[in-house]
Amino acid sequence: MSDPATLNLDLDRARRCGFPEVVYGEGKTVAEVVAAAGRIAQVHGRVLVTRAAPEALAALAAALPAGTARPRSRTFALGEPAPTHGPVALISAGTADEPVAEECEVTLRLRAVAVRRFNDCGVAGLHRLLQRLDEIRACRCAVVVAGMDGALPSVVGGLLDLPVIACPTPVGYGVAEGGRTALNTMLASCAAGVTVVNIGNGFGAGYAAAAIARLAPALQ
Amino acid sequence: MSDPATLNLDLDRARRCGFPEVVYGEGKTVAEVVAAAGRIAQVHGRVLVTRAAPEALAALAAALPAGTARPRSRTFALGEPAPTHGPVALISAGTADEPVAEECEVTLRLRAVAVRRFNDCGVAGLHRLLQRLDEIRACRCAVVVAGMDGALPSVVGGLLDLPVIACPTPVGYGVAEGGRTALNTMLASCAAGVTVVNIGNGFGAGYAAAAIARLAPALQ
Amino acid sequence: MSDPATLNLDLDRARRCGFPEVVYGEGKTVAEVVAAAGRIAQVHGRVLVTRAAPEALAALAAALPAGTARPRSRTFALGEPAPTHGPVALISAGTADEPVAEECEVTLRLRAVAVRRFNDCGVAGLHRLLQRLDEIRACRCAVVVAGMDGALPSVVGGLLDLPVIACPTPVGYGVAEGGRTALNTMLASCAAGVTVVNIGNGFGAGYAAAAIARLAPALQ
Amino acid sequence: MSDPATLNLDLDRARRCGFPEVVYGEGKTVAEVVAAAGRIAQVHGRVLVTRAAPEALAALAAALPAGTARPRSRTFALGEPAPTHGPVALISAGTADEPVAEECEVTLRLRAVAVRRFNDCGVAGLHRLLQRLDEIRACRCAVVVAGMDGALPSVVGGLLDLPVIACPTPVGYGVAEGGRTALNTMLASCAAGVTVVNIGNGFGAGYAAAAIARLAPALQ
Amino acid sequence: MSDPATLNLDLDRARRCGFPEVVYGEGKTVAEVVAAAGRIAQVHGRVLVTRAAPEALAALAAALPAGTARPRSRTFALGEPAPTHGPVALISAGTADEPVAEECEVTLRLRAVAVRRFNDCGVAGLHRLLQRLDEIRACRCAVVVAGMDGALPSVVGGLLDLPVIACPTPVGYGVAEGGRTALNTMLASCAAGVTVVNIGNGFGAGYAAAAIARLAPALQ
Amino acid sequence: MSDPATLNLDLDRARRCGFPEVVYGEGKTVAEVVAAAGRIAQVHGRVLVTRAAPEALAALAAALPAGTARPRSRTFALGEPAPTHGPVALISAGTADEPVAEECEVTLRLRAVAVRRFNDCGVAGLHRLLQRLDEIRACRCAVVVAGMDGALPSVVGGLLDLPVIACPTPVGYGVAEGGRTALNTMLASCAAGVTVVNIGNGFGAGYAAAAIARLAPALQ
Amino acid sequence: MSDPATLNLDLDRARRCGFPEVVYGEGKTVAEVVAAAGRIAQVHGRVLVTRAAPEALAALAAALPAGTARPRSRTFALGEPAPTHGPVALISAGTADEPVAEECEVTLRLRAVAVRRFNDCGVAGLHRLLQRLDEIRACRCAVVVAGMDGALPSVVGGLLDLPVIACPTPVGYGVAEGGRTALNTMLASCAAGVTVVNIGNGFGAGYAAAAIARLAPALQ
Amino acid sequence: MSDPATLNLDLDRARRCGFPEVVYGEGKTVAEVVAAAGRIAQVHGRVLVTRAAPEALAALAAALPAGTARPRSRTFALGEPAPTHGPVALISAGTADEPVAEECEVTLRLRAVAVRRFNDCGVAGLHRLLQRLDEIRACRCAVVVAGMDGALPSVVGGLLDLPVIACPTPVGYGVAEGGRTALNTMLASCAAGVTVVNIGNGFGAGYAAAAIARLAPALQ
Repeated sequence: MSDPATLNLDLDRARRCGFPEVVYGEGKTVAEVVAAAGRIAQVHGRVLVTRAAPEALAALAAALPAGTARPRSRTFALGEPAPTHGPVALISAGTADEPVAEECEVTLRLRAVAVRRFNDCGVAGLHRLLQRLDEIRACRCAVVVAGMDGALPSVVGGLLDLPVIACPTPVGYGVAEGGRTALNTMLASCAAGVTVVNIGNGFGAGYAAAAIARLAPALQ
Repeated sequence: MSDPATLNLDLDRARRCGFPEVVYGEGKTVAEVVAAAGRIAQVHGRVLVTRAAPEALAALAAALPAGTARPRSRTFALGEPAPTHGPVALISAGTADEPVAEECEVTLRLRAVAVRRFNDCGVAGLHRLLQRLDEIRACRCAVVVAGMDGALPSVVGGLLDLPVIACPTPVGYGVAEGGRTALNTMLASCAAGVTVVNIGNGFGAGYAAAAIARLAPALQ
Repeated sequence: MSDPATLNLDLDRARRCGFPEVVYGEGKTVAEVVAAAGRIAQVHGRVLVTRAAPEALAALAAALPAGTARPRSRTFALGEPAPTHGPVALISAGTADEPVAEECEVTLRLRAVAVRRFNDCGVAGLHRLLQRLDEIRACRCAVVVAGMDGALPSVVGGLLDLPVIACPTPVGYGVAEGGRTALNTMLASCAAGVTVVNIGNGFGAGYAAAAIARLAPALQ
Repeated sequence: MSDPATLNLDLDRARRCGFPEVVYGEGKTVAEVVAAAGRIAQVHGRVLVTRAAPEALAALAAALPAGTARPRSRTFALGEPAPTHGPVALISAGTADEPVAEECEVTLRLRAVAVRRFNDCGVAGLHRLLQRLDEIRACRCAVVVAGMDGALPSVVGGLLDLPVIACPTPVGYGVAEGGRTALNTMLASCAAGVTVVNIGNGFGAGYAAAAIARLAPALQ
Repeated sequence: MSDPATLNLDLDRARRCGFPEVVYGEGKTVAEVVAAAGRIAQVHGRVLVTRAAPEALAALAAALPAGTARPRSRTFALGEPAPTHGPVALISAGTADEPVAEECEVTLRLRAVAVRRFNDCGVAGLHRLLQRLDEIRACRCAVVVAGMDGALPSVVGGLLDLPVIACPTPVGYGVAEGGRTALNTMLASCAAGVTVVNIGNGFGAGYAAAAIARLAPALQ
Repeated sequence: MSDPATLNLDLDRARRCGFPEVVYGEGKTVAEVVAAAGRIAQVHGRVLVTRAAPEALAALAAALPAGTARPRSRTFALGEPAPTHGPVALISAGTADEPVAEECEVTLRLRAVAVRRFNDCGVAGLHRLLQRLDEIRACRCAVVVAGMDGALPSVVGGLLDLPVIACPTPVGYGVAEGGRTALNTMLASCAAGVTVVNIGNGFGAGYAAAAIARLAPALQ
Repeated sequence: MSDPATLNLDLDRARRCGFPEVVYGEGKTVAEVVAAAGRIAQVHGRVLVTRAAPEALAALAAALPAGTARPRSRTFALGEPAPTHGPVALISAGTADEPVAEECEVTLRLRAVAVRRFNDCGVAGLHRLLQRLDEIRACRCAVVVAGMDGALPSVVGGLLDLPVIACPTPVGYGVAEGGRTALNTMLASCAAGVTVVNIGNGFGAGYAAAAIARLAPALQ
Repeated sequence: MSDPATLNLDLDRARRCGFPEVVYGEGKTVAEVVAAAGRIAQVHGRVLVTRAAPEALAALAAALPAGTARPRSRTFALGEPAPTHGPVALISAGTADEPVAEECEVTLRLRAVAVRRFNDCGVAGLHRLLQRLDEIRACRCAVVVAGMDGALPSVVGGLLDLPVIACPTPVGYGVAEGGRTALNTMLASCAAGVTVVNIGNGFGAGYAAAAIARLAPALQ
């Protein structure tokens, strides 16, 4: 009964929050997703769509050919600027965490923040993390993406003097399935000052990391 | 069988993480708490004890008379420096959230970060928050402390261009008792980029907020 | 072994409760749904079917061509009268909540209650709600439909002197997936007097709102 | 560090919502409870305190001798007006539900709504409810208070053409302990249009029932 | 690596427990189901298969043409004897509970117990149950099958002097989805002496009801 | 506000259900418990009180000196008749389950059913159960009381041709604490036809076992 | 954005832990699975892939024809050595547990440990276990695989003087669905010294059993 | 009604399982605990009591003066032999885990297994673990005791070629309170072959570690 043509977008958000409204793709029809993304792109020159279904990604790519659709992270991004801040260290535990890590990277880049990736650093093979600590310490902030036991942020947080954002993923089975265990481990971390986002919320982790990185001096 | 005299303190943490090891009071005997705090105070000149029982607070006050014991937040702090960074906006929903908010404030101050308090800003009386938005916007970062429905961070996050850390409290009864509902609401926030700490973890929220505030230029 | 021809319908309910039995479509065969709806339509001149599968909606439309099938809300309605009471304010947080909101609107209308829709009023862009408060205050009762953090009813409830019914939706992912978080937030609302229905129960919210609106003087 | 003398009360709420701010006693010191209640009583001439500890009740009775402290429901009420609306049927399942039912009755009365009590109507002895149906039908609205299996609202809801608010209590043990089972049963009720409040929230049930009853014509 | 040809059936169970081993179809290959059922039918002359996939039902019907496959309850039964005991009252709340009720009926019959069905007796229309109480009282034992709020066994249990077995079903959505709410309601029943089986376990309810009915004098 | 003098007892229950109303002690004042028990004893000549606090037990013993108060099971029973039916086998896993087992035994005896006790039969020492199987088989029905892993009913159920009622207890710690694990194990039992009661509900198990035992021929 | 060609494998693990990195198939693309398995096979001469999708199994079989793909357990194994240690008793409750049991057996064999299988030993037919106790006692260690009530390890643990590892499976429905009940039962086992792995983690059970068996003297 | 004098002890267990029955103190009266322990000490010359209340410990010390009561772990042990096997590495995360670690050590020693303690090795200060790896590698088996995030076993498991048993503790607050988070993290560990015991089950961890250590060659 409601008419999708009458979208009530929050076009004021860029002024209030420093970034335009992001289109959450789930539960919207393809037409609604394309209409919202098109209007935001028109007003702000950049737009991010998250959790888009494959058909929505295809329709977005057709309607807004300057943008990039990434199926693994189910994102569509248009208008990525040159990086002005950062870098942020994006550390992930394993390959299966890639969809969430990619969503995080896309978000950071769209907010003009440079990203350094540190993949496959799970705690079962600790040396892979330890040998790259100096590179990580040179960043402004760290995002740690992990599923299963979610132990990686505790280890990272104990080794750094940086803001650390932990992002749990639904990777795992049995008690780990769905990501609740990783989430709780991260919240209960014995390392001081780790903050956490919702399971699979690479977007939120990236958005917060960008806000933090932008407090620090800009890239030269 | 283990001997508490042989504490295995992490005296290297100040170098690694920028702040000495914090003494977690729960589950330790009074003697263990005092021994750990005394040793850290001796080495680093400052020490923070959290979740200390009343008897531990009394013993700490006797052993380290330069410090301050605060029963409402169950904290003991010694060596608070003059603030060099911040301020951080510390927004709380109601009076019952005070123990957690106070733990947060104590932590921020011990990390040399200035704090501005905004109390009783719960969403049931929204005008109390809205009329102070300009003051909040002038801060580097916001910590939002709330129990019950935990709705405040979503409202705050939608109004600001600052890093926002949400800290749930166990205030409430029925489905809210224990703080799980506030925690989940904050994790599921529809406002972008809110990060979250464990229920009642005012220390963690303050520690993270300090790390963030210290990225920004120092106070004049 | 049971024979669907021998439906044991509650044909007395209209007398007892003021509205005929509603057909719950889930778990019934298409034949059972059509038989029940047909019999109720015959006796009472109006019928509502909820949670109907696509095949059931098609069969209902064929069997009862005077009715309307709405796939987004999975409802079938026949015999909508002219409104005699209301209006009820139907406030929803986002587009993904539309299936639940539509089920609510269908129910209200079939009970002869007028509806005013306020879409996309999520708390992340608070101004969208605040600028329409006068219109909402002019209604008899408010239904608030939201998923994710479920924070909207707390904000609405703090601003109005009306009965407020909160209806959580399963919109969201991670801790929000399935709607439990929105439900609990609404139950724990710090705004006084918000009552709540089951996750996704737009029908129940509309049914209760109609019962409330019918206590007030009729529309002129 | 926060100063309780600087309470940030929502003294505007009576204008916005039709009833002054209610003082939630849990987590506040006795001094804070008395200060808040005293200020509200001074401005509005009536005040309700809920979930007050025994010492807070005693201090309130001393400070505001015109009010009534009720230990079973942990409430303090001052300024009860003569009833102008209602009556509301307050139906409870058993004696152990009395603390919650009393909180509900106190709230209704303070909002000037008449109350009729129907005690010990649990579904294990159904005749106790059935023989009083006519009296219940003569009310404007029903509040049903029950713990354990929480089945009573489903039975009541199927027999009446009134708004029904279900209020679960923590009465019971094993799977019922804490009230979650009663809450879920009420939310899943097969009777149409039952709305629900948090476990033990007699205040919220009464507040909502008052808002509903006040829509109907006033008592003569 | 294990060889399905080497089934380790419990062919002694009929002697020990009065009924042959029942084949649980889930998680077995079609070949394993048919082999087990065939062997038991050969030894005992009767066999029951539960939770069989459609392909397994088809293969069973082909292999054991004297048996009956019932897709709604996913059962296959062979060798139903004439009833010697009972009857058992099988009371169900709604049509969507039919798959579980049918599994129960099949089990009772295969154990030579007569069944009387009372369908659509949900508590939202209480008169449908009340008008058939005398028929129910004439049975030896009652099985009550219900989903959603699971309130029916509490009402039935309060009206009868018979053993009552409650069987929850996964019917419902939101908090009811999966049947946990109905299960917990039944366990917390305020009616004395209701015992409960697992969600959807029509087989178990029927098996237990048969054991009970067989304690009473045989049918004439 | 409600007056405890106006108890609304279900004095008709003995006629309907074969046993008078049982007084649930929790949440009632001592005066309310004594008043209810006294009235039932007066009308029916027997009465059972469960979950009574120590003060209530003392007051009952003073008011009704013919009855027996048992602190371990928190029961008070008056009017135990000579046994006419049974026996029921009451099998318990360990000493810590005794409070629940005793409540069960008291209930059975008050319903005139003989009891045989089989203590300390936990599955970790299986021989203790196996050596008494013949005695158990000679009973009409078995109640199995166990906490921790709750495995005992599955073993018992696989060895007997009797109705088996499983009663979980809150005995255990960690995942077992509170009894949920024992409850779920019993509901998921791989032995056919085990039915289950709420955690710690020795009364319900005994009540149901009595109803079952009374179907069988009376004791000579 | 990340490049799968740049796998960061833990090729040092065989040295550290005695066995090469195992490839977890879920969440990886087919190309990523094959690349990782191929590289490990090349370096170490053996490789194990778990939780592989059917397409990944097919691609592995094509790329590494010397290995064996087992669809029931979703495993791929290459380089199985002759057994040097063991045997380990692998006891399973029912046929539906076979996928997990097979994963366990594959893992043990690849670690050069001999396996003896004891299938269909569920506690509902206890004699099947008891008659094979001597064979089990001759092993070095026992793995017990069970779903539903998960009672088998408690029985086994009470009869043996061997390390016992319990492995829950997701077999079952209602409260058993997903394996949480079996897991909790095993953790709460009243038999001393049973240790537990995650639901469905046949790999982990086999890996741990191999580590244990390798402590004992080698096979002759 | 049951007579504690008629304890049904499992005096055969030492023969079957290699260790006498252990007395679980919770839920037993002091008299029952002392009677059981005394009888086992008499028959076997050694006895272990776990989870004993302070009064039970005092009574045990009086009755069996050769034994040792340890209040922190709530254990009583008598008859500790000289170690014949081991050592087992007992690694704990923090001081608050000491009650559980001590229970583990007591159990190992009573089973004649040598123990090496590694305290305060939590992952927030990783160097404390890494610098002692060689000592740990020289043991036969490792038990890892941790609360909060429970991350330590994943790190330990990735560094060793030993059987690793993880023992969660209830240390922590918020989502960690009670130990569920630590338990789940350990079950979901990304390190291969970690097995887990119930929360706070130091006894079980020690018992299993002893069984494992006894497979290896004896101490010289």
